[in-house]
Amino acid sequence: MSSAWLLPEHIADVLPAQARRLEELRRGLLDMARGYGFELVMPPLLEHLDSLLSGTGHELDLRTFKLVDQLSGRTLGVRADSTPQVARIDAHLLNRAGVTRLAYCGPVLHTRPQGPLATREPLQFGAEIYGHAGLEADLEVMDLALDGLRAAGLGDLVIDLADARIVRGVLAGVALDAAVLGEVIAALAAKNSAALQALAARFPADSRAGLLALPSLYGDAATLARARECLPPRPEIHAALDDLAWLASHLARVHPDVRVGFDLSDMGGYGYYSGARFAVYAPGVPDALLRGGRYDEVGAVFGRNRPAVGFSTDLKVLVACAPTPPQRRAIRAPWSEDAGLRQAVRELRAAGETVVCILPGHEHEGQEFDCDRELVAERGSAGSTWVLRTL
Amino acid sequence: MSSAWLLPEHIADVLPAQARRLEELRRGLLDMARGYGFELVMPPLLEHLDSLLSGTGHELDLRTFKLVDQLSGRTLGVRADSTPQVARIDAHLLNRAGVTRLAYCGPVLHTRPQGPLATREPLQFGAEIYGHAGLEADLEVMDLALDGLRAAGLGDLVIDLADARIVRGVLAGVALDAAVLGEVIAALAAKNSAALQALAARFPADSRAGLLALPSLYGDAATLARARECLPPRPEIHAALDDLAWLASHLARVHPDVRVGFDLSDMGGYGYYSGARFAVYAPGVPDALLRGGRYDEVGAVFGRNRPAVGFSTDLKVLVACAPTPPQRRAIRAPWSEDAGLRQAVRELRAAGETVVCILPGHEHEGQEFDCDRELVAERGSAGSTWVLRTL
Repeated sequence: MSSAWLLPEHIADVLPAQARRLEELRRGLLDMARGYGFELVMPPLLEHLDSLLSGTGHELDLRTFKLVDQLSGRTLGVRADSTPQVARIDAHLLNRAGVTRLAYCGPVLHTRPQGPLATREPLQFGAEIYGHAGLEADLEVMDLALDGLRAAGLGDLVIDLADARIVRGVLAGVALDAAVLGEVIAALAAKNSAALQALAARFPADSRAGLLALPSLYGDAATLARARECLPPRPEIHAALDDLAWLASHLARVHPDVRVGFDLSDMGGYGYYSGARFAVYAPGVPDALLRGGRYDEVGAVFGRNRPAVGFSTDLKVLVACAPTPPQRRAIRAPWSEDAGLRQAVRELRAAGETVVCILPGHEHEGQEFDCDRELVAERGSAGSTWVLRTL
Repeated sequence: MSSAWLLPEHIADVLPAQARRLEELRRGLLDMARGYGFELVMPPLLEHLDSLLSGTGHELDLRTFKLVDQLSGRTLGVRADSTPQVARIDAHLLNRAGVTRLAYCGPVLHTRPQGPLATREPLQFGAEIYGHAGLEADLEVMDLALDGLRAAGLGDLVIDLADARIVRGVLAGVALDAAVLGEVIAALAAKNSAALQALAARFPADSRAGLLALPSLYGDAATLARARECLPPRPEIHAALDDLAWLASHLARVHPDVRVGFDLSDMGGYGYYSGARFAVYAPGVPDALLRGGRYDEVGAVFGRNRPAVGFSTDLKVLVACAPTPPQRRAIRAPWSEDAGLRQAVRELRAAGETVVCILPGHEHEGQEFDCDRELVAERGSAGSTWVLRTL
């Protein structure tokens, strides 16, 4: 069993240095969310498959590990995304009339990695606002996302805005089966104009022209003006463009350090978005750090179709991009039954210090903690006292 | 799909009030462990089954959910216990010569609940010391366990000591197959003397007498003296009793508020223990809050049979027993684009306050947060300033 230690592909242990950073990031984001009034919830890792995948589409189904429940014989899924779970909690368990803000942080599992270097066990952090259809809720989750990334030490951020209503508006009235729609979305994601031209060959003229224009509709604020010219003049498209303009102007005012861009063909991520969407990028990182948007339909299957807007991110991706905070130094202490030493150790630990007691016989081994001080006995006229000495 | 919200049996959402307490408990225990010099690691939820179950016995196998890896076709297990994973990390990944202290906190999944009210998704917290065979390491993990429970607000704790070498020593030289051994351990756990008598009918006289004495060997410090009289005079039994006496005297000195007891027939938990063991109880809670002990053999399958001692606990059990800390009060603020308001909100949040912005149209809804103050504009000669007003 010499290979017993080998882990499955795209699965890894998180070792001490990185685990500490992940934990700090986790706490920072949860505290930030709490400061905004988001309440923490912890949905389970396992659910009945039909509940877990309700209203989410094929992509999430393929990513979800399935199990059989020995207690019921039913098929269970291990969550691959917590967003639908949190919608279920809002819709069914809390069942509040007013605005509800929920945050969560926990692992999810994917049957297949989302990219060649991706983990199959992201540590998903997310925040959601239910019950408010207005753009103020969209703006609040964007504020939280940007404040959280900034607090994690990430700078030079770019937020790209999109809106699910734009692609849908362009395709409105075009009869498409799900497979072809999938190809259209894939071609948009790849900004593959040749593929789009082939797919749109028999579309009505305005939809075809709009679809072919979409891949070029990215960039700065001028993108919205160009979109108004070359996309079909449909009310939902104009509503989406108006919303994006409002959000962009507010973001520019509140986050002058963040560059606001547009990418109107972006349909990345799972298929539950229904309105404005956003993705945040950092320099040198090819994929989005964080994605979010409005998904008003996600709770429908639970009998409560509330307005919903939120975002999620993988802390394992963030931690790989964020700067490393300096490690806290530690104190070494001898192992002894001396009551004075025990008391000194206890007080230092209560004050937030790490005190490593060197177990007998291990005095000359290297220590993993970077100890910059040690506790030593100082003999005085009234007996020994334990004092800190710099190493 | 009206039942889409129903969760599997023994699986539950953790809603805001309890989630907040779980998170506080988690942070308190991780910080306490860090103060002792335990480094955080995060082993994965999924591993190859042979690695996950190495050296752990049948009980853990039955509790482990199995999956097929689409990437490799191999059988994976979802961890039901992180202890063997952390031993793997010590043995293989860190591969350090000296003492290594590791802590972890994360969900595990069980195919079947451990009791009628148990969750199938415990939130397991644990800490382990590798590389030191002496009792100082046993004592240190007990110190950490007791300090952690005390910091969580649990009082009137009882720590029961046992030692895996005692039952093994009593049965030494008795030829037993695994099934009968299982029955013996079950009869000991139930303190079922009739069953033990039947099982031990053909055992050698000293083993039979020892086995039948074991169920009565629990209670205070006098237990050890009785054990020396009625257990077979074998070296490993005496070594175990000496170790327990040493540990008990140290625990009594360092934790005068904790009652130290003995339960020499206790073999509860998974089968990997090899030396002194402990279980901590709180008044009114029937099952142990936390279990630990020495399991020097657990890393053997990974090619590195290091001394190991540690404990683990389910934070979901702890949170149900620990007193509820007072909830932090929040501040309500109107939604407005006013730069002064935005700045005031930002400063309050940075100071650790929760500030809930009431989204437009929701002014008259009940708030989930208990807001005891609100931000209001005060008009002065130099314009508006935003001040806190008590509600």
